[in-house]
Amino acid sequence: MRSLQEKIINEGRVLSSQVLKVDSFLNHQIDPQLMKEIGEEFAQLFAGEKVTKILTLESSGIAPSVMAGLALNVPVVFARKRQSLTLTENLLTAEVYSFTKKETNRIAVSASFITGEDRLLIIDDFLANGQAALGLLDIADQAGASVAGVGIVIEKAFQDGAQLISERGVRVESLARIQSLENGKVTFAAKEGVTS
Amino acid sequence: MRSLQEKIINEGRVLSSQVLKVDSFLNHQIDPQLMKEIGEEFAQLFAGEKVTKILTLESSGIAPSVMAGLALNVPVVFARKRQSLTLTENLLTAEVYSFTKKETNRIAVSASFITGEDRLLIIDDFLANGQAALGLLDIADQAGASVAGVGIVIEKAFQDGAQLISERGVRVESLARIQSLENGKVTFAAKEGVTS
Repeated sequence: MRSLQEKIINEGRVLSSQVLKVDSFLNHQIDPQLMKEIGEEFAQLFAGEKVTKILTLESSGIAPSVMAGLALNVPVVFARKRQSLTLTENLLTAEVYSFTKKETNRIAVSASFITGEDRLLIIDDFLANGQAALGLLDIADQAGASVAGVGIVIEKAFQDGAQLISERGVRVESLARIQSLENGKVTFAAKEGVTS
Repeated sequence: MRSLQEKIINEGRVLSSQVLKVDSFLNHQIDPQLMKEIGEEFAQLFAGEKVTKILTLESSGIAPSVMAGLALNVPVVFARKRQSLTLTENLLTAEVYSFTKKETNRIAVSASFITGEDRLLIIDDFLANGQAALGLLDIADQAGASVAGVGIVIEKAFQDGAQLISERGVRVESLARIQSLENGKVTFAAKEGVTS
């Protein structure tokens, strides 16, 4: 997705060969117009899939998911990372290890909102080691829901997340695929590398 | 806002005289079409205010804020409740006490994204005791930004949040104002009670 790649080049900051900071438009400050384009791109990619609901993870997955939900005319459910006092009954949960933060978070979704009737599109802002997406796939499995695929805004293609998801037979669509962050520079993956 | 009131009546669950659960469309599952209407309503209410940026709080403030940002054509910044490893430098912070969770959270915004040039619209999903909104106002003050007002999706008008904000000379606009949750029933405040 060209406008996203341009935004990454213009505003992304390469903090190391592993870390790309995009908090001026995705993770802390949000560009609503770009989110709308991203949502519409996801909607187009999964148009024939009869998606009934989008599943994402708070907080940075919410903006692109709501825009995709608007375009696909389906609700969005976001998994919570922390226990909420008013979210206590009938939880579907998964453990998600963060390599960046070196901690395991329990993520949770109310079983009221994901059922065996659902066909889910899972959306997240970043894909690196795939732990968050795999946790969301676990939750989908627990609910007996089918999964149309995983939509990712930015994939770090030099890590193995996309492969781990593909090995589970699930389609992955990443709108920007980064091949390398070496030498302080963002290099995108060649088009033919797209997992699908 | 009639469609929001109808949604609250049809899907809101009154857990006690203090707690209204709206996690089927706002706090956990999100209705993107309703969020779009809410965003457009905020944009209309603050249309003449030369808003440059929207400030909100993760996670439930993000969806209505992004839709308002789309309608007003301005970026959205969400304050974080937890430290992020990649959000460490130049933080504007405030302490926010949650009466529901009985805990104090430090909320933080990068000083890179809110400056003295900004005119902010602060948006949040709920207004009860006003602690979150007051924390966001503190952050605006630290940045030297001016504040066009506070936009709230659902106000519990029987608590004093709106009054505390108004006493600081800040305009509050709530799209649904709940007068009472007594007897398991949602009663909306009369129109003329709107703080402005």
